[in-house]
Amino acid sequence: MILLNQTVASIKDLDQKSMKLAKERSDNLIKPPGSLGVMEEAVVKMAGIYKDSIPPVGKKAVMVMVGDHGVVAEGVSAFPQEVTPQMVMSFLWGGAAINVLSRHAGADVIVTDVGIAAPPIDDPRVNQCRIKNGTDNMAKGPAMSREEAIQGLELGIRLVQEQIEQGVKMVATGDMGIGNTTPSTAILAVFSGVDVEKITGRGTGLDDQGLKLKQQVIRKAIELNQPDFKDGIDVLAKVGGLEIAALAGVILGAAAKRVPVVIDGFISGAAALIAKAISPLSVDYMLASHLSQEPGHKMMLEELGLKPLLHLDMRLGEGTGAVTAFMIFDGALKCHKKMLT
Amino acid sequence: MILLNQTVASIKDLDQKSMKLAKERSDNLIKPPGSLGVMEEAVVKMAGIYKDSIPPVGKKAVMVMVGDHGVVAEGVSAFPQEVTPQMVMSFLWGGAAINVLSRHAGADVIVTDVGIAAPPIDDPRVNQCRIKNGTDNMAKGPAMSREEAIQGLELGIRLVQEQIEQGVKMVATGDMGIGNTTPSTAILAVFSGVDVEKITGRGTGLDDQGLKLKQQVIRKAIELNQPDFKDGIDVLAKVGGLEIAALAGVILGAAAKRVPVVIDGFISGAAALIAKAISPLSVDYMLASHLSQEPGHKMMLEELGLKPLLHLDMRLGEGTGAVTAFMIFDGALKCHKKMLT
Repeated sequence: MILLNQTVASIKDLDQKSMKLAKERSDNLIKPPGSLGVMEEAVVKMAGIYKDSIPPVGKKAVMVMVGDHGVVAEGVSAFPQEVTPQMVMSFLWGGAAINVLSRHAGADVIVTDVGIAAPPIDDPRVNQCRIKNGTDNMAKGPAMSREEAIQGLELGIRLVQEQIEQGVKMVATGDMGIGNTTPSTAILAVFSGVDVEKITGRGTGLDDQGLKLKQQVIRKAIELNQPDFKDGIDVLAKVGGLEIAALAGVILGAAAKRVPVVIDGFISGAAALIAKAISPLSVDYMLASHLSQEPGHKMMLEELGLKPLLHLDMRLGEGTGAVTAFMIFDGALKCHKKMLT
Repeated sequence: MILLNQTVASIKDLDQKSMKLAKERSDNLIKPPGSLGVMEEAVVKMAGIYKDSIPPVGKKAVMVMVGDHGVVAEGVSAFPQEVTPQMVMSFLWGGAAINVLSRHAGADVIVTDVGIAAPPIDDPRVNQCRIKNGTDNMAKGPAMSREEAIQGLELGIRLVQEQIEQGVKMVATGDMGIGNTTPSTAILAVFSGVDVEKITGRGTGLDDQGLKLKQQVIRKAIELNQPDFKDGIDVLAKVGGLEIAALAGVILGAAAKRVPVVIDGFISGAAALIAKAISPLSVDYMLASHLSQEPGHKMMLEELGLKPLLHLDMRLGEGTGAVTAFMIFDGALKCHKKMLT
């Protein structure tokens, strides 16, 4: 809890002076002011984050947090839990979408076992940081204890700050975990107060009956656990996930070190809602990436006050949308630095 | 006219067999089918274009066509015509947004003077292909003759096919020309039949009075010239532009050689409408890039049946949105080729 508290206390406002200077520079580049749209806005925000009116194009990493979900016992996912370790293996072989896109964008892929249900994968390229073998079934009780939620948050903080110490200048969030749209939808429902029906999607491919069941399970989990929307850690513990905890930690840890975090899709967005509840200032350090196919994602981004750049109808997770956005942010930073004035 | 007719006759259907094989491969990659959304759709389309179920990641070029517009005499632009040659100079110095983004995306920038009003720029890096010193004022008569429109179309065909012969595998359209949202809006109005008021924007920065004047000028040009919406060349000649003609030629020329064309913003979209009117099959070879700030752009893309990937509120032209999309298409092609099955 000490690390978490220290981290939250370290998150400060954006630097207005650097933002003003960046805006002035941007308006003086050979183009009509504002004509690069969101690219210009993102650069000004990054100037405020880095306290640097000409922010650097630097090293990038995507933090892929992996965890399982006890709630899959209720039948909320079209895929079995065995897929989680299989996908981790494909991350290590370099053959998943996140690997290919990260190589294309020039980013490192950092894979962490935060709470897989299957036996640990014996490979030094996986951060072995398992808190427990998947969450408990939130339809029968809290997904985890408050202590475990804090452990997950602090894990994310530590891991992202390790990357930042090694020179990483831009971070993306990524997730893997069968069933994780269910806790993410629950988190959105708790913070937004919106009907579960309106924001529940088919995840990676539920049929009509599966969708109905998923809605019932989410509603039941919220009624049973009564998460307090004013307490981010409480929401996370009761209806969240271990990888979601670690991703919220990544966001807080990056914000504390003044490094921008590109938020991937629906799972990462749920982590961002948790981070926002714990530290409202952390939103200033978030950059949106894509709008996913999940029906609740648009509302989630609105809750965060973020506008998605990419409309690709993706629904893969892993950080694929965020890493794709890396390329656009790097392009924006290069324009800001290298265009004639 | 011979080259144009031959080109149109050479544009064939997409190859269904390659598309089917590409779709099968895509569905077998380690991800839920369709979870990469538009990226997967684009790859399948490119498979049909190249007749290759695993399309190549190859050389790229953005064709920046430059022309001036006699209609600026009516006061429809916030910037003077002197800016056109100045921007060409900045393209040559490598300091414009299109240069920086093209270097970032790994694309060549091909700059062509199709019809600048100012004296020719004496530099071998500019294709000196001027048809005339800017169009005539379309508010007083046709912007150009039918012969000049065909010359512009054939110029675009020749130039893009030169690039393709040198190994270019993906082409983007780009434009520069003070005042060119005015003819582009006129083209959209003619093809869509929609009220000019609904689709006229402020270009690079008109005030309220300027916007009203621009609307009146566009309405007047259409009433006076009576372009025939069933005849793309007629629309182009009467209310188009020289750079728009060349860009429509680029699209037709690329389609005839089975190379995909990434369509930039509003001006490129107007050229795409002309290309579609001349050859409806050419739409199959177009890939959308971004949704610009121009109020008519959304409708324009709907007319073309294209869905924009990037929502960046850009309004710069030059090909900046299309070149940014190059990075996404390359990422999609790499996923298709390199992900595990």
